[in-house]
Amino acid sequence: MLYKISETGYNKEMYADAGNRFLIGNGYLGVRGTYDEYEKEMLPAVNLAGVYHKVGDGWCEPLNAPNGLYAFLKVDGKELKIGNEDFTSNEMCLDFLHGILKRETTFELTRGHITFTSERWADAADPHRVFARYKILADFHADVEVYFGTDTDIWELNGPHYESMDFDEKEGILTAVAPEYVPKENESELSYIPRTKVYTGERFALSFAANTEKVKEGAKYLNKVCFVTDANVPYEITKLFAVYTSKDGEKPLEDLKNKLYGFENETYDKSLAAHKEIWEKRFSDGGVVIEGDNEAKEAEIALNYSLYHLNSIAPRHAADMSIPARGLSGQTYKGAIFWDTEMFMLDYFLMTDPKVARSLVMYRVKTLQGALKKAESYGLKGAFYAWESQEGGFDACSDYNVTDVFTGRPVRTYFKDKQIHISAAVVYGILKYVEYTGDHSVLSEGGEEVIRQCAAFYKSCLTKRYESEKWELLDVIGPDEYHERVNNNAYTNRMAKYVFENAAKLLSMHADTSKEATEYKILAENLKQQEPGKDGVIPQFDGYFDLEDVSLCDVRKRLLNEKEYWGGANGVASHTRIIKQADVVAMLGLFPDDHSVKVLRKNLEFYEPRTEHGSSLSACMYALLMCRLNMPDEAFHFFMKSAESDIKGGGKQWAGLVYIGGTHPAAEGGAYKTMLYGFAGVSFEGGKINITPKLPGHITRLAFGVRYKNKKYKIDITRDYEHCYEIPD
Amino acid sequence: MLYKISETGYNKEMYADAGNRFLIGNGYLGVRGTYDEYEKEMLPAVNLAGVYHKVGDGWCEPLNAPNGLYAFLKVDGKELKIGNEDFTSNEMCLDFLHGILKRETTFELTRGHITFTSERWADAADPHRVFARYKILADFHADVEVYFGTDTDIWELNGPHYESMDFDEKEGILTAVAPEYVPKENESELSYIPRTKVYTGERFALSFAANTEKVKEGAKYLNKVCFVTDANVPYEITKLFAVYTSKDGEKPLEDLKNKLYGFENETYDKSLAAHKEIWEKRFSDGGVVIEGDNEAKEAEIALNYSLYHLNSIAPRHAADMSIPARGLSGQTYKGAIFWDTEMFMLDYFLMTDPKVARSLVMYRVKTLQGALKKAESYGLKGAFYAWESQEGGFDACSDYNVTDVFTGRPVRTYFKDKQIHISAAVVYGILKYVEYTGDHSVLSEGGEEVIRQCAAFYKSCLTKRYESEKWELLDVIGPDEYHERVNNNAYTNRMAKYVFENAAKLLSMHADTSKEATEYKILAENLKQQEPGKDGVIPQFDGYFDLEDVSLCDVRKRLLNEKEYWGGANGVASHTRIIKQADVVAMLGLFPDDHSVKVLRKNLEFYEPRTEHGSSLSACMYALLMCRLNMPDEAFHFFMKSAESDIKGGGKQWAGLVYIGGTHPAAEGGAYKTMLYGFAGVSFEGGKINITPKLPGHITRLAFGVRYKNKKYKIDITRDYEHCYEIPD
Repeated sequence: MLYKISETGYNKEMYADAGNRFLIGNGYLGVRGTYDEYEKEMLPAVNLAGVYHKVGDGWCEPLNAPNGLYAFLKVDGKELKIGNEDFTSNEMCLDFLHGILKRETTFELTRGHITFTSERWADAADPHRVFARYKILADFHADVEVYFGTDTDIWELNGPHYESMDFDEKEGILTAVAPEYVPKENESELSYIPRTKVYTGERFALSFAANTEKVKEGAKYLNKVCFVTDANVPYEITKLFAVYTSKDGEKPLEDLKNKLYGFENETYDKSLAAHKEIWEKRFSDGGVVIEGDNEAKEAEIALNYSLYHLNSIAPRHAADMSIPARGLSGQTYKGAIFWDTEMFMLDYFLMTDPKVARSLVMYRVKTLQGALKKAESYGLKGAFYAWESQEGGFDACSDYNVTDVFTGRPVRTYFKDKQIHISAAVVYGILKYVEYTGDHSVLSEGGEEVIRQCAAFYKSCLTKRYESEKWELLDVIGPDEYHERVNNNAYTNRMAKYVFENAAKLLSMHADTSKEATEYKILAENLKQQEPGKDGVIPQFDGYFDLEDVSLCDVRKRLLNEKEYWGGANGVASHTRIIKQADVVAMLGLFPDDHSVKVLRKNLEFYEPRTEHGSSLSACMYALLMCRLNMPDEAFHFFMKSAESDIKGGGKQWAGLVYIGGTHPAAEGGAYKTMLYGFAGVSFEGGKINITPKLPGHITRLAFGVRYKNKKYKIDITRDYEHCYEIPD
Repeated sequence: MLYKISETGYNKEMYADAGNRFLIGNGYLGVRGTYDEYEKEMLPAVNLAGVYHKVGDGWCEPLNAPNGLYAFLKVDGKELKIGNEDFTSNEMCLDFLHGILKRETTFELTRGHITFTSERWADAADPHRVFARYKILADFHADVEVYFGTDTDIWELNGPHYESMDFDEKEGILTAVAPEYVPKENESELSYIPRTKVYTGERFALSFAANTEKVKEGAKYLNKVCFVTDANVPYEITKLFAVYTSKDGEKPLEDLKNKLYGFENETYDKSLAAHKEIWEKRFSDGGVVIEGDNEAKEAEIALNYSLYHLNSIAPRHAADMSIPARGLSGQTYKGAIFWDTEMFMLDYFLMTDPKVARSLVMYRVKTLQGALKKAESYGLKGAFYAWESQEGGFDACSDYNVTDVFTGRPVRTYFKDKQIHISAAVVYGILKYVEYTGDHSVLSEGGEEVIRQCAAFYKSCLTKRYESEKWELLDVIGPDEYHERVNNNAYTNRMAKYVFENAAKLLSMHADTSKEATEYKILAENLKQQEPGKDGVIPQFDGYFDLEDVSLCDVRKRLLNEKEYWGGANGVASHTRIIKQADVVAMLGLFPDDHSVKVLRKNLEFYEPRTEHGSSLSACMYALLMCRLNMPDEAFHFFMKSAESDIKGGGKQWAGLVYIGGTHPAAEGGAYKTMLYGFAGVSFEGGKINITPKLPGHITRLAFGVRYKNKKYKIDITRDYEHCYEIPD
């Protein structure tokens, strides 16, 4: 397998895409794959996981640390920065087997050529550490100045977040301070943010003798190393950049200093060896072998590249953290946790690192109070989880999520208010964790209470029409966000039923909650479900079939501005049957046994041409249902769409005028799910692993490791055999 | 009292306004007050009551007949048309005591001056007849050609409606044919329209000898009368223009011919005398004397001018017709019937001509089938009356009532779907008719069934939340249309309660419906009502107080385009507390005894500054509540706003990009209601007339006639006495 992706030459326009594609990270932080010399406007970032901040009326979003990976060369008095100067070759290369990003540029000068190589990796062994190595090689006696250090002029979407940057010259430590945020009168108390400090520092070592000095250039605190090269002799600088925040334990500054004091000449190579070993194990345990034709090879690269991203952002350092919808690629979507985690990403971690899966699930347990408060604020009961969950379960989702391209005005959206299916996703995640790992402790440590409160929430959402026997869920938004404020969304009602059923099951086990259990059992039976019509098609919500039946192509033609939002009250899709993403199909994928194969097929055929796939969460849902319907060749296309959502780039960068670029871990997780449940046809039931493969024509072999009920297995599938055997942990 | 309004000089820009202000009509047709020589682009119209037509995807709207009042002069070979030629004087004058419009223009020519006078009136005695008289007076031997006849190039909003115009030269009769409209697959069968023919013809007489001939100029069928004037001698032409449609009886064409054959030289003067007598009686019976200072005089003119309009459009020729929201001033609002009729106009006719009131009410009885079908189409039961009611109760309201000014796209509005308070207005009208006239026959002739079906409708709209005791009405629009899709609108829920209560009362009288009656009684008691908060203010709907509290002025400043729509999903008012028109205040005006005077006052003070009064229906509602609160001086301002809505012109001409100009009979009726119930403080209870006047400072005397329980009274109020005495009918 090829474990590298690279880009040769230089295409400035792709800076945003490339920043995502060449991302490195370790769950604690993500470093965008931008060039060393890039400044703010080219979107470099050291994005911090779970450290949120808010300024004024701006959105609350994760902090970006000062960019401690800033560097550039000056040769013969001339600054050599990509894009400004002639180069004879340039390459950016991510070794995603080891999580190492390397760039190599050869500049052409009057006196000769000089090659600048930089390498960086976010330490997998110690999440506070990022390492870099700079190498200079000239074919002449170049007069070199290497500048490297920290750029404090940070790219921020809703900043500036820092009120001060103090540089301790003696210790070489920078302290960036984000002030306290006190909620305004109409804001949730959950939006309170204490004064937050981000500490960064660096140490470096040279492979050669040189003059070094500290310089401050504008907002940059830099080291300057001056020397004259011998021709064709390499010169190396290794560097440790370390980050702590005031949220990291009792004495983060001391911890940072200790980390820096430990840096020696050999630190880099030793640490790199350990880092590589960890990454190699991740792939030997959790990587996927895909054999077959050329397209199978592409699939293998894309899928494993996706797993690289999931591994780069997994919160291994924490017991109750989750993963934002755009990973650690920046501040898009406010670094918030969506249903993406439970419904798309969780499975990969269940299969490969249940400790991470547990952390994802426990994040929801930890944020139950926020969900209870959110429900209360709507006059509802139980737990209404945040649509965009930040610290303490605070819902960062604003009332106005989209900007109208024609007027520049914010548009009232109802994602926060009406997307009640989020609480069901939380329940789904907990139950899946328990089922797959056999670890019931999450239930007793709060998980059961979460499920109980989610059931109480759905109960309080129910309404009944006069003389009707059925309960209904009115005025909601389903997964297809283009249709707002609909009644009885098929997916939502089915998920609520699932919550009632499982709450009933759990609560019936205790004498003091058995009455409650009975109530939920009755509600599960009496909650209206959307049923297939004569033609087998299930309406997405009440009245869906009354909407205009127009082709996706024709709806697209109605756009007056390519950035305009398709949904909401007046979007081009809103009053048509065109949907953003899998909705009924998502439901059928989760509950395929509710309906006959014929119904599944009818709905797939009906909804697929009407789906814009405007969300990266859509394609894999279709792929999964296609596999279920024994259509793996058709599924392959959607699988690739999911798996390639970041490796290829070019995803949707805008919603209205709001930048939404970044990585797509849910699509990556969705691609894995398609491979696992779809192509490999793995299912887990009652302690047993079943395999009914549906290999696409392109694929001749699939091999990967899974974990189930605390045991480790290898699965190996070809057209001739399906092996599944336990291996030692 | 001054019974004339006039405009001297000429202001071309005001053509749309003037067309409304100088309107004449007789309930069967309305003739816009445009100049004789005006063509299509200046909006002339002979608007036909209740004759609807639809072309393609356009809106269904009333037909305009060919304009049989077209006329102009040619003198010395030169066409004399207002605006094109020099004039020394010009006046347009409406004698609204008699319903006669006169225009007089003196043109200045090289050889001298010539005065063209035209007079027109829509016969009050025979609604198929419109008369005109042209007078020519020159101070020199002018070489005159008078052209007059019919312009078939008709102003239409959603035309062209006619597929052919056949002119029978022998009979001088024009037959305009509007083709059949067959509903499309997704359309209501109620929208079917049979082939409709409009027959028009004319006869004229000269006071002098002249050559006459028929000429056709483009789309115009004209008479040409040529003569040379003696200086300072008047020359007169009188003319009858008659209109029938294929909806008028068995043999409309024959009837038209008979009407034309009856025209003789003396017809004009005889008919005019009869016409004037009818109008004089209308004012002696139903006019209002207002004495006091200058402002009282203005009030008298404005109010009686308003009554002129109500009289011009009253369907006296029919037993079950109603009045469109823009009267007979054109095709605006599709010539459809709104709640305006019952809630604003009905009272004037109850007081002055109960036969008209009966017709308005019986229109709703006649259209019950349409209301039943509308409810059914939403999966509801009972009678959901049309928001914009046309023939057979067909709801002409489209799903897209507003055009977005920024994109030119139609905007999905929910007036038709969600303004369920319309059915309560229908019930209110029937009950008020019965109460005031004592005529119970409308109940037995279908009125009671209407009330029963309206109660059944509201019942089917009810929902209950889990574990709640109260029924709710979710997802509605109240009178304030700017806030769409709200829950438990105060006005709507109170009106629904009123319907339940009255249905219970009526149905309890029959043994076979007593069970139903009990059910409605319980529902009336258990339907959620919005209650005043601690500060006494009643929220307009659930969550109203969560909306932004911003001043009307600041909201106005947010407009980017003066034509943009304030409401809907994304309007400038939608997410603020700014409302279009009286809503809670309308409810309090109808049910003042529900709350303490303190609460009434608190709500008036809260809502008035937050009301845009973007509907002509708003001001009178405020005026009525102010009178109730003994604030007649404050009410006077709002009364004048209502009374002057047409005499002053300048009303809202646009909603988004849709032309909504025309007359405002609801405001006119509302002004009358303010005079009657507010200033005069008249109330009717148990056969007794009570008077508790609240005269504004400007007014020293109010005198007018009313009818109650089939008797006629004169009411005369000054600061010294309040007289109410019966007079012979």
